[in-house]
Amino acid sequence: MAKITSVSPLAPEGFPELPVIGGVRFASAAAGVRYAGRTDVMLALLDPGSTMAGVFTRSATRSANVLDCQAKIGADSEAGAAIIVNSGNSNAFTGKAGDGSVAAICAAVAGATGLPETRVFTSSTGVIGERLPHDRITSKVGELVAALDPGKGAEAARAIMTTDTFPKGACATVSLPGGALKIAGFAKGSGMIAPDMATMLVYLFTDARISRTDLQALVSGINARTFNCITVDSDTSTSDTLLMGATGASGVDVTAEDTAFAEALEGVFLDLAHQVVKDGEGATKFVTVNVTGAASDADARTHALAIANSPLVKTAVAGEDPNWGRIVMAVGKSGAAADRDTLTIRFGDVLVAENGWVAPSYREEDGAALMKEPEITIGVDIGLGEGKATVWTCDLTHGYISINADYRS
Amino acid sequence: MAKITSVSPLAPEGFPELPVIGGVRFASAAAGVRYAGRTDVMLALLDPGSTMAGVFTRSATRSANVLDCQAKIGADSEAGAAIIVNSGNSNAFTGKAGDGSVAAICAAVAGATGLPETRVFTSSTGVIGERLPHDRITSKVGELVAALDPGKGAEAARAIMTTDTFPKGACATVSLPGGALKIAGFAKGSGMIAPDMATMLVYLFTDARISRTDLQALVSGINARTFNCITVDSDTSTSDTLLMGATGASGVDVTAEDTAFAEALEGVFLDLAHQVVKDGEGATKFVTVNVTGAASDADARTHALAIANSPLVKTAVAGEDPNWGRIVMAVGKSGAAADRDTLTIRFGDVLVAENGWVAPSYREEDGAALMKEPEITIGVDIGLGEGKATVWTCDLTHGYISINADYRS
Repeated sequence: MAKITSVSPLAPEGFPELPVIGGVRFASAAAGVRYAGRTDVMLALLDPGSTMAGVFTRSATRSANVLDCQAKIGADSEAGAAIIVNSGNSNAFTGKAGDGSVAAICAAVAGATGLPETRVFTSSTGVIGERLPHDRITSKVGELVAALDPGKGAEAARAIMTTDTFPKGACATVSLPGGALKIAGFAKGSGMIAPDMATMLVYLFTDARISRTDLQALVSGINARTFNCITVDSDTSTSDTLLMGATGASGVDVTAEDTAFAEALEGVFLDLAHQVVKDGEGATKFVTVNVTGAASDADARTHALAIANSPLVKTAVAGEDPNWGRIVMAVGKSGAAADRDTLTIRFGDVLVAENGWVAPSYREEDGAALMKEPEITIGVDIGLGEGKATVWTCDLTHGYISINADYRS
Repeated sequence: MAKITSVSPLAPEGFPELPVIGGVRFASAAAGVRYAGRTDVMLALLDPGSTMAGVFTRSATRSANVLDCQAKIGADSEAGAAIIVNSGNSNAFTGKAGDGSVAAICAAVAGATGLPETRVFTSSTGVIGERLPHDRITSKVGELVAALDPGKGAEAARAIMTTDTFPKGACATVSLPGGALKIAGFAKGSGMIAPDMATMLVYLFTDARISRTDLQALVSGINARTFNCITVDSDTSTSDTLLMGATGASGVDVTAEDTAFAEALEGVFLDLAHQVVKDGEGATKFVTVNVTGAASDADARTHALAIANSPLVKTAVAGEDPNWGRIVMAVGKSGAAADRDTLTIRFGDVLVAENGWVAPSYREEDGAALMKEPEITIGVDIGLGEGKATVWTCDLTHGYISINADYRS
């Protein structure tokens, strides 16, 4: 099998109408980094006074771009900021040449925008281990700056796709006593064409006026409950990056304690995170794993990830097989505390197993009917404490194998 | 796709001629636990004076049989011992009824052999969460005892197969100053038919005279370097069991310090462990992952397992794709110490990457040629210390998905 071109069956109906965020403009261009006949570079420019926050992969082999962003993200600045992202080449494991590519791109953007280089953030996504032809990108910077437009977020979201089957966007509006705030963001994740990894990139923007430290606190906390709780195949990218900018253009001040803003922001994070899972390579089912009653929240997360990453659980879901025995297995192997005789398992609202055995009320046809749904909830109560966690994943199908094993002939 | 019936392309040419081990007799029978038209129970009887040792799954949801074996294995006894194993039903997650099934089987074997129940070891493998129809097994015990024969090890190896595509046996002879010693063993592992897990069972026998504590020390140590270093899909069974019996029939004394015996024993363990991987569900490639230069042996093992369990590495191998970027990714995500710029990667003897980038001498066609071999070695030097580890795995193919997702209609 060669290239898979159909859109995920779990895709949303369409890309949302992203609101204009005061103080942010977007542009995209076709630089021919790797792909032909499509855009592959996007630039976002944020006005002076914007604050920036970010979270990044913890991979020990992270890309040159990630290292550069991490070095810059914690600084306060009154200057604006730029985010420039290319698809087609991840600039990961490219040694000192990779560092040079990042420096060249930052210099070009700084030169064209008047920003200091310390306020230019870069991401690259695509094939790894190949030298990034950064001159193809730097030669497009002038064109990108000239084309900047507040309404071009959707085009920017398309330019960063690699093997995604749909662009991923989300937005929210928050009404506060001081006025209305807008939040918009887009993401990419999960792929197929080139020998690359399922890399996740996320960019979010708001016109709220918020300090850098408060924005970072919000972003880090919400990220832990959203993007850090999704898994497609347990393989962590070298390039995962989430960047958020707050321009202050609304004139409305918020802090990390502002629950209405935080809740709206978390909704946007969660929406994008779910869209990444729904575009998981080969995905046909969206799975929510809820673990309760664990000895601690950390134990609950360990159990939930063991279930969500188990190839046997994921293939059972693909086969629409209510194979609860594999969930028992995954809990047992996770390493976190569990007791066979206090474990309770539910598919949706259906009680499947309790007291160390199948529930007397459970009928196989009830479980089988639930497994035919495109969205499935697996509920596991460990029966030992108050710890809880939720993670989201997709199934493991022939599509995943085809995408990752079959494309080379 | 329904049932896959072809034998693994990685299977050995045939089942070895297992030597008779003085003091051990085998029998098998068709009890109809789940399968029709094949044997599904095996009994091994060891003469008085035998010592027993074992290692078991650490799953928190382990089966009733495993819990019973663990309670018995550490006791000294001058009585003989029996091992009775059924396939078709794992008796796991069957609550108190499962404990009752183990007790009933042990009582039946004790009654028919004169052994104390504390010397009867049981294993069950197959579907989980269904009550074991143990009366089908106990009703065959008389027949099994009557049929015991020192030469029936191969038949016993077949009776414990579930979704294995070939029976797995290995043996060795050790010449010592005091005389010759024999070692024979068989294993099962990796499957497809029923909604069960890839469960591994291993039984080994020797005519050496060795204390229980020395035998256990040897078994535990060698197991850590062999069976504990294989992975098919990262999913740990609720039933994994390895039991070894030493009858002393040779009259030759050995201890845990006897290197010739230990080396021969390790050879048998390793042979069986590799056969389990070669019968991994859907396997078409046998992969050795050698990690050196890690900060510690534990770190090396963490890296090696991250590579061996990565779905993206495993699908690349399936696709015969020398995708070394995915190995970089797996090292990066493992959580153990690593540095992009000191990492060296080899496929077989071919240097692929070093100094944080692809090696100047590397040619893609050299890597591609190596990946076409049925047996592939991935070498990773972390460049930080002296820690090393080797693990063995197989690729992740459409066969795995078919076996685990497609069999339910």
